[in-house]
Amino acid sequence: MTALQRWTRYQDWLCDVPGAGLRLDISRMNFPPDFVERMTPAMSRALDAMRDIEAGALANASEGRQVGHYWLRAAHLAPTPAIRADIESTLGAVEAFASEVREGRVAPAVGTAGKFTRFFVIGIGGSALGPQLLGEALRAPSVYLPSPFLDNTDPESIQRFFHEIEDELESTLALVISKSGGTIETRNAMLEAQHAYAARGLNFARHAVAITAAGSALDHQARAQNWLRTFPMWDWVGGRTSITSAVGLLPAALLGVDIRAFLAGAASCDQATRDPDIRRNPAALLALMWHYAGNGSGDRAMVVLPYCDRLALLGRYLQQLVMESLGKGRTRSGAPVEQGLTVFGNKGSTDQHAYVQQLREGRSDFFVTFVGVDDPGAAGVEVEQGAHSADYLFGFRLGTREALSEAGRESVTLTMPRLDAFQLGSLIALFERTVGLYAELIDVNAYDQPGVEAGKRAAGRVIELQRLVLAHLVAHPGKSFTAGELARTLDEQDVEVVFHVLAHLVARADSNILAAQAADPAQIRFRYEPPA
Amino acid sequence: MTALQRWTRYQDWLCDVPGAGLRLDISRMNFPPDFVERMTPAMSRALDAMRDIEAGALANASEGRQVGHYWLRAAHLAPTPAIRADIESTLGAVEAFASEVREGRVAPAVGTAGKFTRFFVIGIGGSALGPQLLGEALRAPSVYLPSPFLDNTDPESIQRFFHEIEDELESTLALVISKSGGTIETRNAMLEAQHAYAARGLNFARHAVAITAAGSALDHQARAQNWLRTFPMWDWVGGRTSITSAVGLLPAALLGVDIRAFLAGAASCDQATRDPDIRRNPAALLALMWHYAGNGSGDRAMVVLPYCDRLALLGRYLQQLVMESLGKGRTRSGAPVEQGLTVFGNKGSTDQHAYVQQLREGRSDFFVTFVGVDDPGAAGVEVEQGAHSADYLFGFRLGTREALSEAGRESVTLTMPRLDAFQLGSLIALFERTVGLYAELIDVNAYDQPGVEAGKRAAGRVIELQRLVLAHLVAHPGKSFTAGELARTLDEQDVEVVFHVLAHLVARADSNILAAQAADPAQIRFRYEPPA
Repeated sequence: MTALQRWTRYQDWLCDVPGAGLRLDISRMNFPPDFVERMTPAMSRALDAMRDIEAGALANASEGRQVGHYWLRAAHLAPTPAIRADIESTLGAVEAFASEVREGRVAPAVGTAGKFTRFFVIGIGGSALGPQLLGEALRAPSVYLPSPFLDNTDPESIQRFFHEIEDELESTLALVISKSGGTIETRNAMLEAQHAYAARGLNFARHAVAITAAGSALDHQARAQNWLRTFPMWDWVGGRTSITSAVGLLPAALLGVDIRAFLAGAASCDQATRDPDIRRNPAALLALMWHYAGNGSGDRAMVVLPYCDRLALLGRYLQQLVMESLGKGRTRSGAPVEQGLTVFGNKGSTDQHAYVQQLREGRSDFFVTFVGVDDPGAAGVEVEQGAHSADYLFGFRLGTREALSEAGRESVTLTMPRLDAFQLGSLIALFERTVGLYAELIDVNAYDQPGVEAGKRAAGRVIELQRLVLAHLVAHPGKSFTAGELARTLDEQDVEVVFHVLAHLVARADSNILAAQAADPAQIRFRYEPPA
Repeated sequence: MTALQRWTRYQDWLCDVPGAGLRLDISRMNFPPDFVERMTPAMSRALDAMRDIEAGALANASEGRQVGHYWLRAAHLAPTPAIRADIESTLGAVEAFASEVREGRVAPAVGTAGKFTRFFVIGIGGSALGPQLLGEALRAPSVYLPSPFLDNTDPESIQRFFHEIEDELESTLALVISKSGGTIETRNAMLEAQHAYAARGLNFARHAVAITAAGSALDHQARAQNWLRTFPMWDWVGGRTSITSAVGLLPAALLGVDIRAFLAGAASCDQATRDPDIRRNPAALLALMWHYAGNGSGDRAMVVLPYCDRLALLGRYLQQLVMESLGKGRTRSGAPVEQGLTVFGNKGSTDQHAYVQQLREGRSDFFVTFVGVDDPGAAGVEVEQGAHSADYLFGFRLGTREALSEAGRESVTLTMPRLDAFQLGSLIALFERTVGLYAELIDVNAYDQPGVEAGKRAAGRVIELQRLVLAHLVAHPGKSFTAGELARTLDEQDVEVVFHVLAHLVARADSNILAAQAADPAQIRFRYEPPA
């Protein structure tokens, strides 16, 4: 393409939506001239389906649930007055609680501080990435420190965290977020936290806030132990689209984020992306680009490159939103497929020094989503005559787009006038809608995650086996067994898993399980030696 | 495969290297029975080539350079006494300087602290990811705070950082790392830092340390301004393999890491991965698995899942090491290819709640590299009868491996007895050697990065164009131009780039460039209005 053709194509396809503060440039995707027209009937059906979802259809059919994250920022769209009231009262309660905490009206029971001086979040997946992104992108300096996230069942890192803040623990608030209230990693991290508070003579309940579905195990615990507060989640909000619920809003409000502006941004993008005129609808165009790039089956990965440090978590946020929504093994009618759209990326220009080498010259199995912020918030110092450091942030974004384009590598570019709460809300809503529309095009349920269960079940089986193996060894102190012998005794087919469980027990210093080493794993003998 | 067959395959293929503390399990890769034998001649040649590299061959032919990162941890292997002396004296100097800083013998010029109380790093790519990984994985509590990394030319985030530490700036040390000494992002961040120190009445030079090649622009500046110290880099160390040079070692030593143990771990893995017996050589087996998984052309992405929070950066570290090394457009003899191996991943079990849904049920275009630590450093609290939180970390790792395997998704598992400096050194050396061997198999130069230059050049052109556009507008105050008119005036073919530059100048509040909006980008008129 000549420079003139590129300029014409840029003008032809530019999708500028001032109301939502978004500009989408798809001119560097080499879709054929008739592609958008050809896809229009399918996209129109997808837009209709989104309308039905917003009206309360059971869009998550496999779980028999409505999909209501759009209502969270436009409560008047909720299908029942009860849902509308729930949304509005929760928003008010979040704002009130954040004020009470910041002003010291909700305060630690002991200590001299008088106020909570910091907080952290326990949560994983949708209960972590949304508030993490919000905090990184928007936290006001000098309200609270960046909130750490305990998002795993790794006691070493959890204990390191509590060790590092121990002097401040008495004035530290804990937010425990689990929609289902039964997520194992979250439960474990919460038990570690409870233990850390107790070890300092503090009552965890007086520092703890829950965000969870009414009636969940976490909800019961919070009520029974009289936690500071509980905020609701609802079955019509999926974890990966919970950022505009209390899950995202409460941590953000504590960090001084203007959550009403965040919701207004999401609402304005929702409005813009209902537009039936596909060429004016950035979510529709973006979904069509995903379809074009990967032949409707994700054959190209999406590399997310925001040129803005505060958006460094956007790639991981979208990785979850997109891959968990679209990575499916069945269409909605049950036909087997292997769907998905792989997402990775950190930030520019940093990543130019990591993997852009491969993007420019190596495998051509991706497209880039550049994200730019027109006004980066600071021009920076003049690093050369007439050029400030922020000019280079812009220059590298544009330069990398050109360098990739020259080499036949495709990209879309999304720009926003600035990065504030409104714009982040709008940006997130754009991708939520794009995922919804694209899922309609490829006919998968974007709202369930059946594959996550398999790993959990298998893990449960490992833990159960560990209990049985340990019990058997402890019941026969000093007696040694090979993995095969133990498997036979326990009537377990899977000797390999028994072997791994045994090796794990040996590595756990407090288990008193010892191994007599042998070169051949099948010959290693394991025994329990009671402590002297 | 039956459980019995899996157990047999596990025993058959287990590669246990106690000297390097590594265990590699490739039993869940479904390579055909004769695959390793068939690949043995090629792998033997690759091992020979590695021997030549270690002996000082000009392995980086396109840049005419030796590849010497293996010498950094076994200086007696260096091809000349001068290189050996450089390595040994630099290691000694790093250790001495870290002690001097910690003990206050190198101290801030002003202020009451008497010692440097914190430090940060300015660097990007290979000059950031290595020390970042080292610090996250190994930093001792209570020596220094985690070191922030300024790894971009984003003035907003840099200024936010300096704002947040401003009260401590007088006792804050700055490490500026750039091998070439001319990396734009690093230069810009350094200029921002200089400005921040000056704004507090501090002389940056008395807080600054450089790590760079002798004779580079950065080296000249450090000497001219009398910085605290300069440590050398050499042209035979690539940025992405610089973690065992001063680039990784100095920040690590300041954080209390046992850098001799780190080097010893790398050396012991280097030793183990010279083994010509492929089945006992974990790097050779791993390289063969990469070849098998992706048909020698990276057709499957590598998902990196360490079940250990302290290794959360491993995926990004390997993303750089692997993709920049292997993502090439030419073989060594110049034949066009599109090579590479896409790497992404964060940590388990966290990522199980992000994208494992797609891995288990969706696109089957990846293999997983599980990384496990037998003794996680803490068992954690008993979360259920007989199960501690670390048991779940193990259980989720094994469970996810099983769940993926059941669905026909392949994985390798690497385990280590613990995560300490020795083991991290060993782990990194394993991947460095694997990359080297795999590059031999696919005949690409793993040590250059010609594609990175294209983006830099294009960015330089954007910055130059910005200067010209601004100068022209300023020279004609009040007069307005369209992008097309300016492009013609400046004899620039690329109107689109001129348009983006103009839009960027308008967004930069201090430029005094204004736009008269119009729906059609080609009709927007831009002008300079001198400040009143």
